[in-house]
Amino acid sequence: MVVLDLQTNKREEFIDITTLIEAELSKLGKLGGVGTVFIPHTTAAVTINENTDPYVIDDVLHRLKKLVPLDGSYAHSEGNSDAHIKASLVGPSVTFIIEDGRVRLGRWQGLFFCEFDGPRRRRIWIKFM
Amino acid sequence: MVVLDLQTNKREEFIDITTLIEAELSKLGKLGGVGTVFIPHTTAAVTINENTDPYVIDDVLHRLKKLVPLDGSYAHSEGNSDAHIKASLVGPSVTFIIEDGRVRLGRWQGLFFCEFDGPRRRRIWIKFM
Amino acid sequence: MVVLDLQTNKREEFIDITTLIEAELSKLGKLGGVGTVFIPHTTAAVTINENTDPYVIDDVLHRLKKLVPLDGSYAHSEGNSDAHIKASLVGPSVTFIIEDGRVRLGRWQGLFFCEFDGPRRRRIWIKFM
Repeated sequence: MVVLDLQTNKREEFIDITTLIEAELSKLGKLGGVGTVFIPHTTAAVTINENTDPYVIDDVLHRLKKLVPLDGSYAHSEGNSDAHIKASLVGPSVTFIIEDGRVRLGRWQGLFFCEFDGPRRRRIWIKFM
Repeated sequence: MVVLDLQTNKREEFIDITTLIEAELSKLGKLGGVGTVFIPHTTAAVTINENTDPYVIDDVLHRLKKLVPLDGSYAHSEGNSDAHIKASLVGPSVTFIIEDGRVRLGRWQGLFFCEFDGPRRRRIWIKFM
Repeated sequence: MVVLDLQTNKREEFIDITTLIEAELSKLGKLGGVGTVFIPHTTAAVTINENTDPYVIDDVLHRLKKLVPLDGSYAHSEGNSDAHIKASLVGPSVTFIIEDGRVRLGRWQGLFFCEFDGPRRRRIWIKFM
């Protein structure tokens, strides 16, 4: 298992980690197969979406905030229930295909770490098969 | 990696691709293991749900439209932010189990390509392990 | 493929199945690799979230109920369209990493079966690779 460290900078942001993953593929000399990104946190997630126009990610974050407001009469007392709920909606893991030592994505896609309760020091686990 | 082509016909629709995947399993003589469906588009997704009563899928699409309206004061200028957001909510990949050369699903389940910004010519990537 | 049986007790609840999965790892003497949990039902799902404060799960269920109400003018006639929609939002499968015979999760994480239309007798499929 590969462990990546990531420092997030805002309460909510998506950070493109595609090149971080490809650097690990390169170190390991891994050319093909599949990889699974697993987020070991309960207030963060992982997704794939457009990495060209940053407004797309802004729109995703903004809509998630409307669907799951920060103040929502929650029972959990830490004030971050919205982040836990978003984590389950977006999901804790993604499996991707590896070819020629690259993360094989569509033309407009990037693989994003989703921070919902930062800024924090986060970890990303990756298993290559 | 197997690549399937798919022509969608409406702006939003779910298309059952289970038999398309099983045709590839048959061609490859693949009997067991797991498979990952990966959607290389940022305005489409993949899900598993009931394939018996088509009203179920209608209800899923209809509710997604309520949660993420087409007109939602979005920043991205292409007019399809709703489709990008739905893609992240439903997800870009699903991993399934293969047994006896079949996609092993529950009795009422089908594996659906989710079009959120069609009609378009789409691709589906599948990796068998 | 490993099949687990699970009796749920309420219409909607999340049940931590991490120890059930680890018991299977132990039986099989499986020490490393990855595992995929697949839910063969169309009104249930699987997620990973906090397993320490039970209020977190309550908040997730409560917010899902607000986003996808039981009565929502649905077309499907069985009265459980909300459960089908939640199943597609949360997702039918999760892939996790196995190390030292344990499901490798973050410090606060548990792996939960998500019941949205119980109580029912349910099955969980797991494939270890």
